[in-house]
Amino acid sequence: MGWTGQLPDALTSETGGKIILLVADGLGGLPHPETGLTELETAKTPNLDALVTEGSTGLHVPIAPGLTPGSGPAHMGLFGYDPVEYLIGRGVLEALGIGFDLREGDVAVRINFATVDADGNITDRRAGRIPNEVCEELSARLDTIELPGVELFFRPVKEHRAALVLRGDGLAGDLNDTDPQATGVPPLPVTAQCPEEERTAELLNTFVAKAREMLTDQPKANAITLRGIAERTRIPTFGERFKLRAAAIAGYPMYRGVAGLVGMDVLPIASTPEAMATMLKENWNDYNFFFMHYKYTDSTGEDGNFDAKVKATEEFDTVVPGVRAVNPDVLLVTGDHSTPSALASHSWHPVPVAILSAAIRRDANTTFGETACLTGSLGRMRAVDLMPLMLSHAGRLAKFGA
Amino acid sequence: MGWTGQLPDALTSETGGKIILLVADGLGGLPHPETGLTELETAKTPNLDALVTEGSTGLHVPIAPGLTPGSGPAHMGLFGYDPVEYLIGRGVLEALGIGFDLREGDVAVRINFATVDADGNITDRRAGRIPNEVCEELSARLDTIELPGVELFFRPVKEHRAALVLRGDGLAGDLNDTDPQATGVPPLPVTAQCPEEERTAELLNTFVAKAREMLTDQPKANAITLRGIAERTRIPTFGERFKLRAAAIAGYPMYRGVAGLVGMDVLPIASTPEAMATMLKENWNDYNFFFMHYKYTDSTGEDGNFDAKVKATEEFDTVVPGVRAVNPDVLLVTGDHSTPSALASHSWHPVPVAILSAAIRRDANTTFGETACLTGSLGRMRAVDLMPLMLSHAGRLAKFGA
Repeated sequence: MGWTGQLPDALTSETGGKIILLVADGLGGLPHPETGLTELETAKTPNLDALVTEGSTGLHVPIAPGLTPGSGPAHMGLFGYDPVEYLIGRGVLEALGIGFDLREGDVAVRINFATVDADGNITDRRAGRIPNEVCEELSARLDTIELPGVELFFRPVKEHRAALVLRGDGLAGDLNDTDPQATGVPPLPVTAQCPEEERTAELLNTFVAKAREMLTDQPKANAITLRGIAERTRIPTFGERFKLRAAAIAGYPMYRGVAGLVGMDVLPIASTPEAMATMLKENWNDYNFFFMHYKYTDSTGEDGNFDAKVKATEEFDTVVPGVRAVNPDVLLVTGDHSTPSALASHSWHPVPVAILSAAIRRDANTTFGETACLTGSLGRMRAVDLMPLMLSHAGRLAKFGA
Repeated sequence: MGWTGQLPDALTSETGGKIILLVADGLGGLPHPETGLTELETAKTPNLDALVTEGSTGLHVPIAPGLTPGSGPAHMGLFGYDPVEYLIGRGVLEALGIGFDLREGDVAVRINFATVDADGNITDRRAGRIPNEVCEELSARLDTIELPGVELFFRPVKEHRAALVLRGDGLAGDLNDTDPQATGVPPLPVTAQCPEEERTAELLNTFVAKAREMLTDQPKANAITLRGIAERTRIPTFGERFKLRAAAIAGYPMYRGVAGLVGMDVLPIASTPEAMATMLKENWNDYNFFFMHYKYTDSTGEDGNFDAKVKATEEFDTVVPGVRAVNPDVLLVTGDHSTPSALASHSWHPVPVAILSAAIRRDANTTFGETACLTGSLGRMRAVDLMPLMLSHAGRLAKFGA
C-alpha cells in the first residue's frame, strides 16, 4: 500500500506559518528545436530566478510517470488529494468550468446538441457545431423543462455543448453515456445498473424525451445526448485535511470551481498580475493558505505558440514581486502539469517546482527551468506530496511517531 | 491507494505510434576498481551514445530500492505488470525456461533428483549432480508414468534438475515443497491445505511413489523431490492491457516464455544482432510493439567476467542501427536488472534507460552509463512505469480526467 499522501489527522496543526501556492497553469514545456531551451528556459524571468537562487528546486510528477493529467486531477494533486482516489466526474468539471454553483449531491451532465433524422438515428453528433447564440437560445428553452421532485438547470457551454444539473435528494451519478459515438444509430437510453440508479435514469430519459419535443423546429440541434453523468460527491475539505483557512485567487471558472470543491473560499475574479497581487494583499490577514492561479502559460501552450508561451511566462514572472511583498512563510511556485507548445496539449512531463522558506536545503540553481530543476535539492516527487512539504516548511506538521 | 501502474482501460488507445522496447539483460553494472567505470561506461558504444545524445535518459528500479529481481519479475515489470502482484511461480518459470509450451491451468513443478538410503532418508539432495545424459535418460523414463485423469510431462533441465507438468481440469498450484532442505530425513509429502488441493496433492504423491519404484536401480538418482509447485494462472494479456499487437524477438527460452505468458507473439529464435535486426525488419508491418531481448550482457556478468561483459555490451551496441533502421516512433533501451560482474549475480542497482521519440525532454547526456543517467531528464522511476511512458510518447495514452 505504501504512502498515499493522506496525512494522519493528528499530524496537522492549527498553528504555524502562512503558505502561498502559486500555480502557472501548464508551466512545463519542451525544448525549442533550434535553441534546445524550453519556454520557461527561454523566458526572461528575473523574479523567478531570484526566488530560485534563494530557494530550493525540484520537479513534480502530476499523477504518475507517463500519465497526462486533465486540469481537475492535476489540481487535486496540487491540493494534496490523490487524483486517482478523488477523481472528479466529467459532468461535474463541465459545470464547474462554466462557473455553475454546484452543490453536494447535485448530478451534473455534459450535453451535446445533436442532429437526428426522421427515424431518430443520429446524423451529426455535434449538430453541425451550432453557433454559441443558438446554443444559448436552446439552452434557455430546455431550462424551462420541469421534472417531478428535482430542480433542474440547463446551461449553455459553447457551440453544441451544454451542461445539465439535477438537484434533489437521492440522485445517482456514474450512469452511462447516451452518445453512441457513431452516426446512423439512435442515442442510447440511460440504463440503471442497480435500484439506487433507477430514479435518476428515469428522470434523465424523461428529460431527453421532453427536449426532443421542444427541439422539433430545429434544423440541426433537434436532439441531445448525455455524457459524463456525475455526482458532486462529498470530499473532505481542505480545512478538514490540513487545518488551514484557504482562499483561492483565480480568474477562470474551472480552477475557481475545483478550489471551491475542496472547500476553499473563492475570492473575486483576478487574472492579471496586478489584480492577483491586490487581491492577495487585501485578503492576507484573513487566511493562512492562498492558492493563486495564472492561466495563460497553459492557453498559449495549448495554442502551440512557443513565443506566446514565453511571453506569458514572462508575465507570470511579474506576479512574483507582489506575492513576495506580503512576506509569506512558505512560497511554492509550480505548474499543475506541462503544456509544451510543441505538443499543443497537456503532457506527462514533470513540472518545475521552486520553494522559498526559512527551513530550505538550498541547491546550486540560479535559474528556473526544467533542466536546472533536475538537480534541485527537492528532487522529484508526486504532486500529492507537495502539500505535506509546504505544511512542514510552515511548521504545521508534527513529528510522525515518537 | 495511490498508483499501482494499472492503467484505466479507457486511457489506452487502439491507434498511435509504434514502439520498440530493446532490452540488454543485466545491463547495469558496478565500477571497475581501477578505472571507476562500469562495464557499460567502459564499453565503446557509439550507437547507444548517439541515441542518448538525441534522446532522454534516466534510471529504473526493477521492483523497489534494494530488491534484486529474478528474470521473471524483472521482465513483468518492464512489460508494465506490477511484479509483486503478478508473481510467476517458480515451477512455471522452470518450465518456461526449457521452452515447454505451458498452457493456462497447467501445474508445473521443479524437480530435484536426490539420493535416499535404505530407510528412505535423504543422503544427497542433488544426487551427486548426475551428468546431463543421466538426467535425460531418467526423465524419459519418468515421462512414461501415467496418472488418472491428467496428462503428464517430465522433462530434463540440467544435471539433477528436471521439470514436471500436469495438465488437466481442476488442478491446484501453490502446494508445499517436498525437499526438506536437509539430509538424514525423508522427503516430505505434498499436503493439501484445502479441499481444492486434495486431488493435486494425491496425484503428486502418487507420482513420487511411482518414480521411486522406477528408480530403484539407480546408485545416485533413486528418488525425487518437488519444489515450486505452481499453476500457470490467467494473466490479462499485453493486448488487453495496452491495446497493442506485440511481438517478442528473443533467443532464450525463459524470455520467450515470459513474453508468451503475457500474450505476445513469440517470433522465431533470434539472438545475434544481425538475426534480431532481420527478424524485426521482416515483421515490422505486422505489429505495433516489439520486445527485443539480448542475453549476453547478463550471462557474462553472471560469470563475473568484467571484460567479457564489456565485449557483450559492445556487441549489444551493434543491435541499435538495425533497430533504428525501421524508424520506430518510440525506442526505449534498457536492461531488466543489473548484473555487475563484481557480484557475478543479479543485483538491486538501478538500470540505465534511454528513450528516443519526438516528444522527449532532452538532457545534456551524450554517453550511456550509470553515472550519466543520474542527471537524465527522465529521472528515476519504477520499471512498471516505463510502459505508460512509452505509450504516452507514442500518442497512445489519453488524458487522465478532464
